[in-house]
Amino acid sequence: MSVRPPATVGQQLDEVDTPALVLDLDAFERNQKALFETAKNVRVRPHAKTHKCPEVGKRQIAAGAVGMCCQKVSEAEALVDGGIADVLITNEVVGPAKIARLATLSKRARLGVCVDDPGNLRAIAASGARLDVYVEIDVGMRRCGVAPGEPALALAKEIAQHRKLRFGGLQAYHGMAQHLRSTAERRAAIEKSAAAVRATRDLLGRAGIDCPRVTGAGSGTYMLEIQTGAWDEIQPGSYAFMDADYARNEWAAPLPRFEHALFVLTTVMSRPAPDRAIVDAGLKASSVDSGMPGIWQRPGLAYTRASDEHGWVEGAPSPHLGEKLLLVPGHCDPTVNLYDWYVCVRRGRVEALWAITARGALY
Amino acid sequence: MSVRPPATVGQQLDEVDTPALVLDLDAFERNQKALFETAKNVRVRPHAKTHKCPEVGKRQIAAGAVGMCCQKVSEAEALVDGGIADVLITNEVVGPAKIARLATLSKRARLGVCVDDPGNLRAIAASGARLDVYVEIDVGMRRCGVAPGEPALALAKEIAQHRKLRFGGLQAYHGMAQHLRSTAERRAAIEKSAAAVRATRDLLGRAGIDCPRVTGAGSGTYMLEIQTGAWDEIQPGSYAFMDADYARNEWAAPLPRFEHALFVLTTVMSRPAPDRAIVDAGLKASSVDSGMPGIWQRPGLAYTRASDEHGWVEGAPSPHLGEKLLLVPGHCDPTVNLYDWYVCVRRGRVEALWAITARGALY
Repeated sequence: MSVRPPATVGQQLDEVDTPALVLDLDAFERNQKALFETAKNVRVRPHAKTHKCPEVGKRQIAAGAVGMCCQKVSEAEALVDGGIADVLITNEVVGPAKIARLATLSKRARLGVCVDDPGNLRAIAASGARLDVYVEIDVGMRRCGVAPGEPALALAKEIAQHRKLRFGGLQAYHGMAQHLRSTAERRAAIEKSAAAVRATRDLLGRAGIDCPRVTGAGSGTYMLEIQTGAWDEIQPGSYAFMDADYARNEWAAPLPRFEHALFVLTTVMSRPAPDRAIVDAGLKASSVDSGMPGIWQRPGLAYTRASDEHGWVEGAPSPHLGEKLLLVPGHCDPTVNLYDWYVCVRRGRVEALWAITARGALY
Repeated sequence: MSVRPPATVGQQLDEVDTPALVLDLDAFERNQKALFETAKNVRVRPHAKTHKCPEVGKRQIAAGAVGMCCQKVSEAEALVDGGIADVLITNEVVGPAKIARLATLSKRARLGVCVDDPGNLRAIAASGARLDVYVEIDVGMRRCGVAPGEPALALAKEIAQHRKLRFGGLQAYHGMAQHLRSTAERRAAIEKSAAAVRATRDLLGRAGIDCPRVTGAGSGTYMLEIQTGAWDEIQPGSYAFMDADYARNEWAAPLPRFEHALFVLTTVMSRPAPDRAIVDAGLKASSVDSGMPGIWQRPGLAYTRASDEHGWVEGAPSPHLGEKLLLVPGHCDPTVNLYDWYVCVRRGRVEALWAITARGALY
């Protein structure tokens, strides 16, 4: 059932079949350098929900990452199968089938998980899993997580009662802050989050509970979390690839400007009218949840509309039939999840093919 | 790399791990019956871009379909590998790598393809492929296809000059008409398309070129195409499953009302506040390009927002932690493309698991 790669090593980019997910290795490596040079005095645990690929993860670890994080037990399974030894599931794991898999996996790797409910915590404890357990607190995104303060303390106390569970600390991630466009708005949001983190950590301390770690932060804000001093570990994912939506943010100090390293290679498959070019990458090839893809280094062209397998390209000079274009995905994470392979390219030549082994790992 | 199924045969639906793509077999079979009972006096060639699964295709053929259609060479490869002997690619196939695969596949099955450019036609002819070649005409959606009339005649004449190519007829599909909300608007659009089809067919006839077939039409309009008398073959795909976007159409005679047969099973994974339930199916589990998913048979609840791996459910009575809900995808085609397996359920019990072997078949 796995799809064979659309390229072979040694091909020129222009020979690659389309649509294909292209990773520019030089740009990826510059993004790695930019992250690890700026993220000082914190642990870096990149988010594999973005890349879903042990090969990418191993390069992040080689650059200094302490391990990976991910959102799903099945993603953690794929990462551990691919040789990643330390994985934090930055999410709640609910239901007997998932908890059983979590317990099994916890015997093969250092594994962490988040909780926001005492019943769920007891179910995890009863499974025999050996885990770092983090209390997720809601620091502004109104998704999962208990309120900061007393509810977090109550859960931390409960964790301490279970012999095989270690209290890992607090998961404190403000996802919506990542996409606030101005640095000032993002800073204001993160400073509010930091106040909630500090208050909770102080409360834990007064109750005699050591909080080993506060983990969270994403590519759009991580330097702001670091500057507050309230986080010990950051979880950026998109920094490695960037996308058209993140590019709409203001990128200013203290954050570095990451580069687009991820592209969808597409072919002009129809030129039915002088003002209309149709490409072979539609919404099954580049996720449109955060807007249409951009077109790389063709400033006169715009990708204006997507249907399932087609995209409309308008503007001038209009590309010819058979011409290949690189698209910048609107949103990198769900776009990666549409592919089985990264076609890794350096200076126009295919250098490697990396399997996206956690593609479709939903459960 | 293929993902193992989230269920086993014999399980109760409530035991299935989540998120999972669930096919209600009774509803699917009723949709099959409704289609084949209404589509009289035309050939039915269902579109496999929706289901991407030879098991579904074989059931469509058993119900009376003449074969499948699809959009990509790699989809056609998966269908032929799965035992489908007659496949029409309702799309242009451009570029040497794809045309070479098309030629290879044409030796293993009855294969059709569309063209809208003479240079592309000559490249296909030069490949040695043995194919039915259809001229795609633009009947209103302004995507691919030559203009009706003379440009179509010129291409048909060119096809006749190539020994291994048969002129299959006209591909005439108005995708945008499918989602016009009122039946009257859809009828007006299809009557305009029919006029373009008739004019082109008449022109071919006057030039002494037999047009074996006019193929096109989708789930939202196919009875309207049939009533014009201008089409010989229809290509509905979504009828088998339905989705929340199609459900927003007016469904009135002559079209039957198809049922929702496709669902995403999801678990409430967090209940952090009395008014907030978070489910484990986000936009990687149910495509949001045509809006948020609906919630099946829970009229007080709404799925209001999606992030990559989470969904927000609001309303009353609010579901409890661990409760499972069925979502009705906003758009069935790209949602199916996120999964490797249909969990086929009848009256609450898993009856079969069908592999979605053309999932991710983009090229």
